[in-house]
Amino acid sequence: MPSDKKPHTVAVIGSGNWGSTIAKILAENTASHPELFTPKVQMWVFEEQIQIPSDSPHYKRYGDKSQNLTEVINEVHENIKYLPGIKLPENVVANPDLGDAVKDATILVFNLPHQFIEKTLSQMQGKCLPYARAISCVKGVDVSDGTVTLFSELIMEKLGIYCGSLSGANIAPEVAAEKFSETTIGYDAPPMDLKAEDGSPSENRIKVDEQRQAKTKPTSVKLKRVPKELVTVDGELLRTLFGRPYFHVNVLQDVAGVALSGALKNVVALASGFVAGKEWGENGKAAVIRVGILEMVKFGRTWFPRSVDEKTFTEESAGIADLVASCSAGRNFRCAKHAVEKGVSVDEIEQTEMNGQKLQGTSTARSVHEFLEKHGKVDDFPLFSAVYGILEGSTSVDSLPKLLDKRFS
Amino acid sequence: MPSDKKPHTVAVIGSGNWGSTIAKILAENTASHPELFTPKVQMWVFEEQIQIPSDSPHYKRYGDKSQNLTEVINEVHENIKYLPGIKLPENVVANPDLGDAVKDATILVFNLPHQFIEKTLSQMQGKCLPYARAISCVKGVDVSDGTVTLFSELIMEKLGIYCGSLSGANIAPEVAAEKFSETTIGYDAPPMDLKAEDGSPSENRIKVDEQRQAKTKPTSVKLKRVPKELVTVDGELLRTLFGRPYFHVNVLQDVAGVALSGALKNVVALASGFVAGKEWGENGKAAVIRVGILEMVKFGRTWFPRSVDEKTFTEESAGIADLVASCSAGRNFRCAKHAVEKGVSVDEIEQTEMNGQKLQGTSTARSVHEFLEKHGKVDDFPLFSAVYGILEGSTSVDSLPKLLDKRFS
Repeated sequence: MPSDKKPHTVAVIGSGNWGSTIAKILAENTASHPELFTPKVQMWVFEEQIQIPSDSPHYKRYGDKSQNLTEVINEVHENIKYLPGIKLPENVVANPDLGDAVKDATILVFNLPHQFIEKTLSQMQGKCLPYARAISCVKGVDVSDGTVTLFSELIMEKLGIYCGSLSGANIAPEVAAEKFSETTIGYDAPPMDLKAEDGSPSENRIKVDEQRQAKTKPTSVKLKRVPKELVTVDGELLRTLFGRPYFHVNVLQDVAGVALSGALKNVVALASGFVAGKEWGENGKAAVIRVGILEMVKFGRTWFPRSVDEKTFTEESAGIADLVASCSAGRNFRCAKHAVEKGVSVDEIEQTEMNGQKLQGTSTARSVHEFLEKHGKVDDFPLFSAVYGILEGSTSVDSLPKLLDKRFS
Repeated sequence: MPSDKKPHTVAVIGSGNWGSTIAKILAENTASHPELFTPKVQMWVFEEQIQIPSDSPHYKRYGDKSQNLTEVINEVHENIKYLPGIKLPENVVANPDLGDAVKDATILVFNLPHQFIEKTLSQMQGKCLPYARAISCVKGVDVSDGTVTLFSELIMEKLGIYCGSLSGANIAPEVAAEKFSETTIGYDAPPMDLKAEDGSPSENRIKVDEQRQAKTKPTSVKLKRVPKELVTVDGELLRTLFGRPYFHVNVLQDVAGVALSGALKNVVALASGFVAGKEWGENGKAAVIRVGILEMVKFGRTWFPRSVDEKTFTEESAGIADLVASCSAGRNFRCAKHAVEKGVSVDEIEQTEMNGQKLQGTSTARSVHEFLEKHGKVDDFPLFSAVYGILEGSTSVDSLPKLLDKRFS
């Protein structure tokens, strides 16, 4: 890289276990690449008062007095509440002030639960650099009124900055413990960024809604070019920023495929849990995973025909690898399995055993079903439909094999 | 189907747990489709003397006196030795005489351990119908001297009859218990069979060695057409013969891809076991599965460029589903995991804990490595090569992540 380019400043929005893990990775890389990045990584933390558990090694320091989470993180370099036991690099700076955390950032990394994203974006409007670039690690897509909206799109629309997506087989505590895994980044760099040297226009409109076939009015966003004085934001830069010896990164252009897989896999994970609850063994689980990946491919091909590459589903960490991991572990799988074993509905398990938290798979299965109904495509997705039917109590798990092969129905 | 066509007669060669399970499925289908098949299914059984275990419900009938396995099967309709507890349909006929078992068969199903296949084929020469068609359920491929030979090819060459292949995520006892699973049949019906009505020649030569690039002399086999008086052997007939409500069948033309996946997945299953032994969790296992499927695709694309369809690996039960099942269960996975946990070699686990049986994955990993070395392609298959290195003691499991991403080596 030429040394006359200015380095990027990175901020993370969100500080749950996955947000803190990503902040750790980013800070490890910014520290070792000062020619590309300012070492300090701001991490916006929704401030809360915490008490240090008495079995924490930090209890001696703080005692029973409640503390600001941000102060504790900055003092002991550990997110004691959401990622206990993992040392964060000292160049991660917890910041309770959203505007202050993002004001200098040229690369923004969104990593917070999807229910908080809209409100957070509203608070950020006008506070981030107009030429910043973003990566969304937010899982799920928003499906409503026959429209699929990716969170990367929502970020683009609300903030007017380009946004890619990151997803993969990344159970956070395992990544935080530096156990081997892989991830996928979808980032289709705006051409004007890549050609900044040749004097491409400093701003341009890009369409963000190729997939919203049900919309009457196309949406586009006016983007500002990343100033040519800054290091170019391309796949190579993102691999350097996110990749670690224990965390391998593939960068693709397929932003939509990466985000879609991260959402749809939860529906398949429920099906895998149902099959496991019936004790149908590894064959049955493998069959559900296989049919699931095909329906994910078909969903992408049908509604995102120009942008989705089906290899994202069949060959990438965001696709098949995350699906396999979610179908063997994870909350959707476990709750569905437990529901079948106990002979109750998944809703009941959610209510009685999840402390008021909601499963991502159940809401995705319901909104995907509503979406398919609106488009008259329910029959083309027998697994997704069966999962919906089982959740609603209108279909039995025993009928699943029959529903998946019309010859036997 | 027109009723003026003569039905097929089916025989199974082999009677282990998978052979007996397949015989059960075939007999269920021949019984319910007498217009397509003679109900009786001959199953060749390598005759042995067995003693009925004292906890078997059949002990009362036989007592301690040793019995011919075939007679017991035909009397109690259960393969007490290899598939105990599963009722076989009464139209499965165990036959200790190989020649007699196959003499009337127009469809032969091979289902025996690969080490017995050559000898069995020699004994069958001149004893089966020259226009019979075959399906090989034999797992593995024969790799030697820089040549990959599919068992379906060996059957074609030795018997002069066309042979397809069947493979999938099919742990035998689960299929026998009628738990849901799927399978894949590769069958590229000879065109003269499909056009028998139009008077296609009654015999023709087909090439069987597209993939043997290292061979100097191409091999071809003279095939006889299936007589037009018989029901046409095509994908639909095979789906009717092998498919059950609990056993879904996809028929493809890619015979080589189906057989290759069934062999190469065992190498990946070893890698998955190594990672599990290290307790790298679901992320690490999913990563190994993903890299494994890509190397399987690359292997197929490199040496079987005209015949292999990469979707067989990424979308079929013989590919991704069988791989996922084998990477979570199965002997290769378990032994590799156990070796890492105990800090010993896989060879040692094989010797001390497998009663002299050999793992399929270890021999495949070694012969694939020899093959890759011969072709100068070791570096293009870092996972396969790492598995070989770990087996040989020259590579550590800890170096696996580094070997899979050159950026960190």
